Amino acid sequence: MAGSSIGKIFTVTTWGESHGEALGAVVDGCPAGIELSEDDIQVYLDRRKPGQSDYTTPRKEDDSVRILSGVFEGKTTGCPISLMVKNENQRSKDYSKVAGYYRPGHADYTFDAKYGFRDYRGGGRSSGRETIGRVAAGAIAAKILKSKGINILTYTKSIGEIEIDKSRFNKEEIFKNPFYMPDKQAAQEAGKYLDECKKEEDSAGGVIECVISGVPAGIGEPVFDKLDAALAKAVFSIGAVKGFEIGDGFAAAKAKGSENNDEFTIGKNGEVCLATNHCGGVLGGISCGSDIVFRAAVKPTPSINKVQKTVNSMGEETEVSIGGRHDPVIVPRAVVVVEAMAAITLLDMLFVSDINQY
Amino acid sequence: MAGSSIGKIFTVTTWGESHGEALGAVVDGCPAGIELSEDDIQVYLDRRKPGQSDYTTPRKEDDSVRILSGVFEGKTTGCPISLMVKNENQRSKDYSKVAGYYRPGHADYTFDAKYGFRDYRGGGRSSGRETIGRVAAGAIAAKILKSKGINILTYTKSIGEIEIDKSRFNKEEIFKNPFYMPDKQAAQEAGKYLDECKKEEDSAGGVIECVISGVPAGIGEPVFDKLDAALAKAVFSIGAVKGFEIGDGFAAAKAKGSENNDEFTIGKNGEVCLATNHCGGVLGGISCGSDIVFRAAVKPTPSINKVQKTVNSMGEETEVSIGGRHDPVIVPRAVVVVEAMAAITLLDMLFVSDINQY
Amino acid sequence: MAGSSIGKIFTVTTWGESHGEALGAVVDGCPAGIELSEDDIQVYLDRRKPGQSDYTTPRKEDDSVRILSGVFEGKTTGCPISLMVKNENQRSKDYSKVAGYYRPGHADYTFDAKYGFRDYRGGGRSSGRETIGRVAAGAIAAKILKSKGINILTYTKSIGEIEIDKSRFNKEEIFKNPFYMPDKQAAQEAGKYLDECKKEEDSAGGVIECVISGVPAGIGEPVFDKLDAALAKAVFSIGAVKGFEIGDGFAAAKAKGSENNDEFTIGKNGEVCLATNHCGGVLGGISCGSDIVFRAAVKPTPSINKVQKTVNSMGEETEVSIGGRHDPVIVPRAVVVVEAMAAITLLDMLFVSDINQY
Amino acid sequence: MAGSSIGKIFTVTTWGESHGEALGAVVDGCPAGIELSEDDIQVYLDRRKPGQSDYTTPRKEDDSVRILSGVFEGKTTGCPISLMVKNENQRSKDYSKVAGYYRPGHADYTFDAKYGFRDYRGGGRSSGRETIGRVAAGAIAAKILKSKGINILTYTKSIGEIEIDKSRFNKEEIFKNPFYMPDKQAAQEAGKYLDECKKEEDSAGGVIECVISGVPAGIGEPVFDKLDAALAKAVFSIGAVKGFEIGDGFAAAKAKGSENNDEFTIGKNGEVCLATNHCGGVLGGISCGSDIVFRAAVKPTPSINKVQKTVNSMGEETEVSIGGRHDPVIVPRAVVVVEAMAAITLLDMLFVSDINQY
Repeated sequence: MAGSSIGKIFTVTTWGESHGEALGAVVDGCPAGIELSEDDIQVYLDRRKPGQSDYTTPRKEDDSVRILSGVFEGKTTGCPISLMVKNENQRSKDYSKVAGYYRPGHADYTFDAKYGFRDYRGGGRSSGRETIGRVAAGAIAAKILKSKGINILTYTKSIGEIEIDKSRFNKEEIFKNPFYMPDKQAAQEAGKYLDECKKEEDSAGGVIECVISGVPAGIGEPVFDKLDAALAKAVFSIGAVKGFEIGDGFAAAKAKGSENNDEFTIGKNGEVCLATNHCGGVLGGISCGSDIVFRAAVKPTPSINKVQKTVNSMGEETEVSIGGRHDPVIVPRAVVVVEAMAAITLLDMLFVSDINQY
Repeated sequence: MAGSSIGKIFTVTTWGESHGEALGAVVDGCPAGIELSEDDIQVYLDRRKPGQSDYTTPRKEDDSVRILSGVFEGKTTGCPISLMVKNENQRSKDYSKVAGYYRPGHADYTFDAKYGFRDYRGGGRSSGRETIGRVAAGAIAAKILKSKGINILTYTKSIGEIEIDKSRFNKEEIFKNPFYMPDKQAAQEAGKYLDECKKEEDSAGGVIECVISGVPAGIGEPVFDKLDAALAKAVFSIGAVKGFEIGDGFAAAKAKGSENNDEFTIGKNGEVCLATNHCGGVLGGISCGSDIVFRAAVKPTPSINKVQKTVNSMGEETEVSIGGRHDPVIVPRAVVVVEAMAAITLLDMLFVSDINQY
Repeated sequence: MAGSSIGKIFTVTTWGESHGEALGAVVDGCPAGIELSEDDIQVYLDRRKPGQSDYTTPRKEDDSVRILSGVFEGKTTGCPISLMVKNENQRSKDYSKVAGYYRPGHADYTFDAKYGFRDYRGGGRSSGRETIGRVAAGAIAAKILKSKGINILTYTKSIGEIEIDKSRFNKEEIFKNPFYMPDKQAAQEAGKYLDECKKEEDSAGGVIECVISGVPAGIGEPVFDKLDAALAKAVFSIGAVKGFEIGDGFAAAKAKGSENNDEFTIGKNGEVCLATNHCGGVLGGISCGSDIVFRAAVKPTPSINKVQKTVNSMGEETEVSIGGRHDPVIVPRAVVVVEAMAAITLLDMLFVSDINQY
Repeated sequence: MAGSSIGKIFTVTTWGESHGEALGAVVDGCPAGIELSEDDIQVYLDRRKPGQSDYTTPRKEDDSVRILSGVFEGKTTGCPISLMVKNENQRSKDYSKVAGYYRPGHADYTFDAKYGFRDYRGGGRSSGRETIGRVAAGAIAAKILKSKGINILTYTKSIGEIEIDKSRFNKEEIFKNPFYMPDKQAAQEAGKYLDECKKEEDSAGGVIECVISGVPAGIGEPVFDKLDAALAKAVFSIGAVKGFEIGDGFAAAKAKGSENNDEFTIGKNGEVCLATNHCGGVLGGISCGSDIVFRAAVKPTPSINKVQKTVNSMGEETEVSIGGRHDPVIVPRAVVVVEAMAAITLLDMLFVSDINQY
């Protein structure tokens, strides 16, 4: 069945496996007349590129994007934009060993159960490389949103037990440390924590936070297509995500109504606004004009050197140690993926909701 | 724009406002030949009915369902099943006061921002009564799932700070206390906690947990239509939900890979299975054969008697006290709504995934 | 599987069987703030009502519509509009005989083949009464289109061999004869033709033509969602339709390029327009500003008194004579159904295409 | 807005312009485990290749397809299949002249009206080259259908006034003449007719007929997703199609019920079947087990050397002669496109309808 497409009006279809010829995305429903170059997209792809610090896989992936259609004389034409990234360094390795057993925490077993067999090279379609198409498409969405005054800020909130301190929050810092943390001190502690993990041949997870500013009130649909429900699905569709919350999220479940409700007040320009933002920018599934704030919980990298029990393809119990060049934490590289999914979802919702102004 | 439909093959469309003539749902894509009566559905609706304890609104809502189409001689025909519940006691009250201001924590303001005006009677379409259509449709989905050996157990995990103790977990207890808690002692404490809330003219939230057993491995689609992503969206589309997590959820973000990975082992019948279930039954977006376990965070009831600041329709700041018969906590009544959304989503995914066995 | 919904943004879901409790439609995605009453819809339903002349079934069907949701204080709210028509006079008759064999030209056999059994009362879901939901929803779409200067004129072009003469075309005449023909003389001849058919216990078909004026250039999407492709699907989804053509249609296949091409010219107001309209208002799947002109071929009523061979439920060959009160021609009553489908499709396309002006 | 995707379960998304880098399609929802090579697809693409006779454009288009994803060790994996055809010989020509005016019968004007500007090189996205993605995807669908005993035979029924004679129908002949006509004599006459057209610097249209055998009864959905409605949309989405009819089509509108109804009878193997096939294999939108027979009317090639009036980009009236290497008739090359659309649509419907056997 299908399942590689998302969005109703701004539609993204991704394709490609970790070790196939190429990976890519088709973006259909992009308005015409928008200036778009490969550079606009490359900037985003570079943010998910590995090999940029000691804490990501040293694999070399150039991941240069090409625009194959939908752009003419530097502008989008309204027709589908086909984006392609060739797989360059993925052919050599021998993956026959991986084919023989199910890696714990990976989708090897479920793909086999579903399809009868699997492209076992580097995880095939369930590889993190699948997110290349998402990020490339998200770059386009983010560019359009920015032109409408909507900005998305995404960063690492925590790695393992190390969490940023809101009092030290510094937006500038995000792109200065390898973890995309807005808190220099927390980033240093995270580095130490990961050094430990590596020593133990183990891995870490973390939490990513995303703040979207400039969204006008009225975006999102009541009932099933609530803005927060759409964001939840989009972010949860990223491989390693195990939790999603908006505003106070799970903490709201412990609060009282008087603590959790956001009182309405009149803003500086006479507009209706919220005095606080426990709701995270969405009321009844529709944006209220406040910042949209959500978080995603990312599980620890499943590939670890530590010995684990598993089952091989002959149905025998065995042990594995997933050697090789794996990220001890995927959170930093997932930051831009979360941002991309937020951009794609919000832009689509914006287009879908537009009709109400008809 | 549309947004009142969910599901690709098993499609549910709901309609109706809190104080309109009626509410209902159209279920399209239900297989033919399934025995179905109004009683099958009424059992579910009764679980969300208020007035059943001191902790739910004393409003009387009979909520008797009628099947208007799609069933012939006691069996589904394969054609759309139209379900209707008439609104009986909702006409009398004077709602003109509510029309005049924005209730904190409600969707009054966002509906106005989106549509230019709103059906202010009882929240209109953003009322909790909107869930009637979901529950009625969910009852059908749950019946079909049960016939395939798939059972859904949903209960309250916590109310405010009061959480169930796993060591006292007792399935039988769930339907014996007004909170649908599987722990008698926790239910008693929750009662006391809510008495306090009521005294303070305040309200409470909580967490709902859902366990789906009997799902075969291989259900769900990779990439955007992951099973957990679909569940996230469906559950997040319930009005008061602010967080969703599967398996270890947010706790996974703090764990190490060696703790969070589920090792594979050989089960009693020689089948591949997981030794633990940190993943919550889904790997790479596809069911792995283990129980699917997820949780939803529900915010405290926004309607409280306590005085709150807000803004009225003339753009003036004012104060409100939402008097009237409101639930001090909506968690117990939301339990069956979560179950309904899980059933609808899983059944649709089952149908959609079937094609892979083609 | 689903299949009772149409439209991406303006979405219509119909439900109901010929002899069930009621029939109806849910219209989701209707913009807010539009004045809408039951009368607006009833006018359209009355156009498909039988018993209005000697040439339609004398069955009495009141078909009074009720709006159950989505309208507040006389205006649409942006939320789903639930429309219901109760079945009044359909319960009495004994249909057990019909259950026993397959009526030629009807869907009895294919429903059995698909679902294993069928609601045999009056054709169940395959009855012409299924179009009630379409017409009710179409009335809403047509009202919105009219407010944007888009008008739809639909009429009978031919019945059997009797065709209107373009030189006698008179718009006023359409609602003056029982066949909705814009040519008084042709209508008289059609009456005589049908009298003959009735005498022979036989039935007739015909062609319906639809002209949509006021559609701005730029509506429709290239590739799969061409405006003419969408109209083709919508009109072909009406039970008895066997052919669809736009502009010169099948005649274009015999013409030469120089005859079929429409030259461009400058209109009175300096706008680009077509000198002729062989294309029927659509070029490359997108409206060009000229009138959209299409035709639908409607097959003769399959229910005839004349004896026909068929097969019964025991798999034996037998003979039937479909006695009863059937229309000798359904074309006149199908005129408003074609108009409704055109309105629904065009409005949805208009909303979908809007994004390009973003 | 989107519009480059078709199919609910077997989903095809096409992309690419006449003179861009490449054209292609992403096929999502293809079952796993099917043997698939580039050769399987190339065979179909070669059928739409020009330059194969005196009656198609002498332009050289190699149109070699590459499979970029979704196939592993010669078998489909269940993941999206990305197909790409590079544009080889399209860059050289100077198209600045074409940019200056609207070609009659083409989509130049409507694209400008919709998007504000257009990729004018060779028609951009509205070029006949857009069908490459359709044919490549259709080849996959046709292969799967064939493995289920479903075969599609498509051929030219008429070119201009020249029509095949059913009494001379010879399946073998189809691939022996440049027009894909199953009647040698008609093909010769068509050749003479086209020679005349070329001499007159004019062009011709024609009718394509498609016969699908082996479809089991029960495929298609009642109401909006009727099998014939889906076929109508799919075929009408091909650029030059102006009419679609199934079974007796427009002729049915002139017939009487007793002539048009197909009587039921008992077949050789005791199965229920139709004595005739006026309905074209579909009753009530659902396949009845008989051959599905439909026809598409294709307009004459709009590009002609003959002088035509039009308007230029400065809004001035002017004259054009579309010189260059254009097909005097596109019908023969469109035959495989019709076949591809039929295959895609039928396979998707088959998957969608499967659920009823659940």
